Amino acid sequence: MKKRNTLRIIPLGGLGEVGRNMMLYEYNDNILVVDAGLMFPENDMIGIDYIIPDLTYLIQNRDKVRGIIITHGHEDHTGAVRHVLEEIQAPIYATPLTIGMLEAKLARNGMAGKADLRTINAGATEQIGPFKVKFFHVCHSIPDGVGLGIDTPQGLVVHTSDYKFDNTPVDNWPSDYASLAAFSEQGVLALLGDSTNAERAGWTPSERVIDQAFDSVFREAKGRVIIASFASLISRMQQVAEATQRYGRKLAFVGTSMQDNFKIAMKLGYLDFPDSLVVPIDQALHLPDSQVTIMCTGSQGEPTSILGRLSTGTNRLFDLKPGDTVILSSHPIPGNEENVYRTINRLFERGANVIYEMLAPVHVSGHASQEELKMMLHLTRPRYVIPIHGEIRQLKQHARLAQMVGVPEQNIAVITNGQVVEFHNGRMSLGERVPASYVFVDGSGVGDVDPEIMREREALSRDGIVLVHLTLDRQTGRLISDPEIISRGFMMSREIEPVLAQTGKQIADTVAKANGNLQRDVERAVGNYLYGETRRRPMVFVTVTRV
Amino acid sequence: MKKRNTLRIIPLGGLGEVGRNMMLYEYNDNILVVDAGLMFPENDMIGIDYIIPDLTYLIQNRDKVRGIIITHGHEDHTGAVRHVLEEIQAPIYATPLTIGMLEAKLARNGMAGKADLRTINAGATEQIGPFKVKFFHVCHSIPDGVGLGIDTPQGLVVHTSDYKFDNTPVDNWPSDYASLAAFSEQGVLALLGDSTNAERAGWTPSERVIDQAFDSVFREAKGRVIIASFASLISRMQQVAEATQRYGRKLAFVGTSMQDNFKIAMKLGYLDFPDSLVVPIDQALHLPDSQVTIMCTGSQGEPTSILGRLSTGTNRLFDLKPGDTVILSSHPIPGNEENVYRTINRLFERGANVIYEMLAPVHVSGHASQEELKMMLHLTRPRYVIPIHGEIRQLKQHARLAQMVGVPEQNIAVITNGQVVEFHNGRMSLGERVPASYVFVDGSGVGDVDPEIMREREALSRDGIVLVHLTLDRQTGRLISDPEIISRGFMMSREIEPVLAQTGKQIADTVAKANGNLQRDVERAVGNYLYGETRRRPMVFVTVTRV
Repeated sequence: MKKRNTLRIIPLGGLGEVGRNMMLYEYNDNILVVDAGLMFPENDMIGIDYIIPDLTYLIQNRDKVRGIIITHGHEDHTGAVRHVLEEIQAPIYATPLTIGMLEAKLARNGMAGKADLRTINAGATEQIGPFKVKFFHVCHSIPDGVGLGIDTPQGLVVHTSDYKFDNTPVDNWPSDYASLAAFSEQGVLALLGDSTNAERAGWTPSERVIDQAFDSVFREAKGRVIIASFASLISRMQQVAEATQRYGRKLAFVGTSMQDNFKIAMKLGYLDFPDSLVVPIDQALHLPDSQVTIMCTGSQGEPTSILGRLSTGTNRLFDLKPGDTVILSSHPIPGNEENVYRTINRLFERGANVIYEMLAPVHVSGHASQEELKMMLHLTRPRYVIPIHGEIRQLKQHARLAQMVGVPEQNIAVITNGQVVEFHNGRMSLGERVPASYVFVDGSGVGDVDPEIMREREALSRDGIVLVHLTLDRQTGRLISDPEIISRGFMMSREIEPVLAQTGKQIADTVAKANGNLQRDVERAVGNYLYGETRRRPMVFVTVTRV
Repeated sequence: MKKRNTLRIIPLGGLGEVGRNMMLYEYNDNILVVDAGLMFPENDMIGIDYIIPDLTYLIQNRDKVRGIIITHGHEDHTGAVRHVLEEIQAPIYATPLTIGMLEAKLARNGMAGKADLRTINAGATEQIGPFKVKFFHVCHSIPDGVGLGIDTPQGLVVHTSDYKFDNTPVDNWPSDYASLAAFSEQGVLALLGDSTNAERAGWTPSERVIDQAFDSVFREAKGRVIIASFASLISRMQQVAEATQRYGRKLAFVGTSMQDNFKIAMKLGYLDFPDSLVVPIDQALHLPDSQVTIMCTGSQGEPTSILGRLSTGTNRLFDLKPGDTVILSSHPIPGNEENVYRTINRLFERGANVIYEMLAPVHVSGHASQEELKMMLHLTRPRYVIPIHGEIRQLKQHARLAQMVGVPEQNIAVITNGQVVEFHNGRMSLGERVPASYVFVDGSGVGDVDPEIMREREALSRDGIVLVHLTLDRQTGRLISDPEIISRGFMMSREIEPVLAQTGKQIADTVAKANGNLQRDVERAVGNYLYGETRRRPMVFVTVTRV
């Protein structure tokens, strides 16, 4: 039985992992959802497209949902929205750019017009059920992000979402210090703060430091300048446009997501440069190289992105040429390092001059570092702290920082997904656990791949497979023809033939002696024989027909 | 026809990649081999144990090999020695520690006593065929490493191998500046220099900076201190031992490779602390926690290592407990980041206090950074430069540094494996290419897995497999029983049954209409049907018996 008049904070994603951020605020029969993101699979989650939060608890309580707030337009905060909308009917609140990006995303999934999207502006306050929510502006690596001051009957909770304190942001719109100070005046029950960079000492540099790096690259570039970045990094578009203009070039955006986001951001006024600076790519390709800037996707080394295809000479519209300067204006997402560096190597091999984070400050993080996290704690002076957005190691470091600025250890909850935290009469306690497992999205399926399936996929891939088909005489149980043997991913064909010939003999022996489960006996005999010969363990499948 | 009296430098590994370092120096009918290393597979080289150099050229010229020099004991310089010895008979020259480690390695592979191992000491000179080789000491992340001054009939070549300039190394044995200066006096034709850290600005810190970090961790640790590092990082053993002694603890080494290397290094005098400091692990486990230091393997997050098993609670001898301090004294090798961070998270979950590179300087690189590379160029003043040991991006940066210190662009050869470089009468030119492809070692097989096999493995793993067996009437061609369908790694069983039931109908239809290659038609029909239903493409295999 749930306690009445208690604020319950229910993390469904983003705690103990990076991505698929989703938090529920529950008070009696009312739920406010904050963010609904996806997470990209790790390298050993084979064949998985992406991972979304476990929506079980939300679905069980679907009638209680009063609203969904999306804090900004990144996939790790928006990518599960369509899956949520398939289950839940509730208005979605977000700032103009985020709404614009959500509309485009829903349209791509055939859900245009099916959501109740409500635009709010940073600085506004909205009553959503029993929650009075103040949206405050935060700087991040996408414009128009907000944090939330959630005034609940049990007290004020500050939910930062992703943020940094950039005092010279590209859009000249710093994080809203005043609202944070005002919350502190009112008294903050709990701070739920971004932990992504809790391991990084000091301050995250301002986006503006990139200007100088871009300027020196553009000044020295004799041919085309090709810049790969995240399609949602609108401020980077602004910085590229400024350098392009300063050096008398024209700018072409390539790639659907890059073009879509440019159009939305331009239309909504998040970009500030003349339209005439931008030309279509086919026009750009007819200009002298020294007058061309191209901005594209692929900064994570994705093989099918524009940059990925340029690196392998398989891009449709244009090829790299010696004299091109390529900038990777990004940081490899953990797990992508191999792809990113492979792409860089290939770009060098094709004669490009490649500039990346290790060589010049062409990227900065969008998340607050340790000194900023401490300042956030001082600005809001919360009684309780719950580190959010991060793996355990990052949540732990954030907790350590909170202790350093004076929050008592027992007032800090380092929790992971599914662990409910309750607030009642100013006291924090741990509640029950709700389902919070990985939900894998693979092809058109949601939740129909589990760890067992992934273990099978891993086993299939490790040493390949061997298929054996036996045709036996129904009466005598003897083989009436040679076993059919097929292999994939096991050994090269010129090496395999002598091994398989021997395998045939092993099978015949096993069949002759078999007196139990023939199929299992043959699988075992073939497996053991192949392991003895090759030290590999392909998966062996045997089918039997008796005639 | 090869040009006579020409020095030919033939890179078989380590140029354009990290690892499997191997270089041939050839003059008329004489070949000197420098290093024979292995390389670890990237994440998408599925099921591969490791990769060695392509030995084709060496085997074709086996009678010319006068000697093999191993510059130090790391796997990327020694790991292919046994494969080379299976093909080539030649003496192996190395320093005492390297010989000790080679002996242990060969013994593990049943090749004890089968190699002609010749111990040389840093500072010595050895005539090997027409090559007069001066071995000069270099600092690196393993003791007793050497670089080579190879005096050839065409001039003096300096081959640095892996190095850094550490002015306060733990073993008090700095890199041999004097020999480098002497080479410069004599006149250096070409420098082949380590490029691993060519992207890193400044100087690599001294190993000694770790002492302070260790000291403060030991000072604050109340329970056991568990340090994971590379088994070959002998200097780290020395540093751990010093901190252990200072804080009144005892030290236990856990893991075969760690124990073996400790014993070899102690016996040969590369470690300097009292024997009595070291206790067996079972004895350590009976001491009070505050008197115990444990050093083990697993700093790369390998699941089967000691640290990996501690993080999952599956270690045999002892478990982690709250109050333990764990230090990862290492840097994640590119591609291992996910495993390393997953291990750190799990260690935190088990209540340990975890210290790693991001939080404190508990590791430094063993390779020279940009200022050191520039100094090496100034010290040796080579006419020609060939960057070695690195991916293209690193070779390119090394070349850029060489230009910055005044080497003309045309005197720098950025080449990759297999590209021969020739020196004749003081002039450098590119020669022919020799085979230099990846040779995959998988189980007991060498070279019997190729990219095609790996593509098959990848395809098997992506969406799993579906096996269909049909039994047809030989006369009518009709199915005489329901098709047998097995799947692995495709979908969960509760989801799969309705799909497979429908698949059976598709197969029956296809068989009824088939009039060509029945097997191929059914594979195609099943594949298309499953893709339509699930957006996944499992590999489909059909076998047919006619009765």
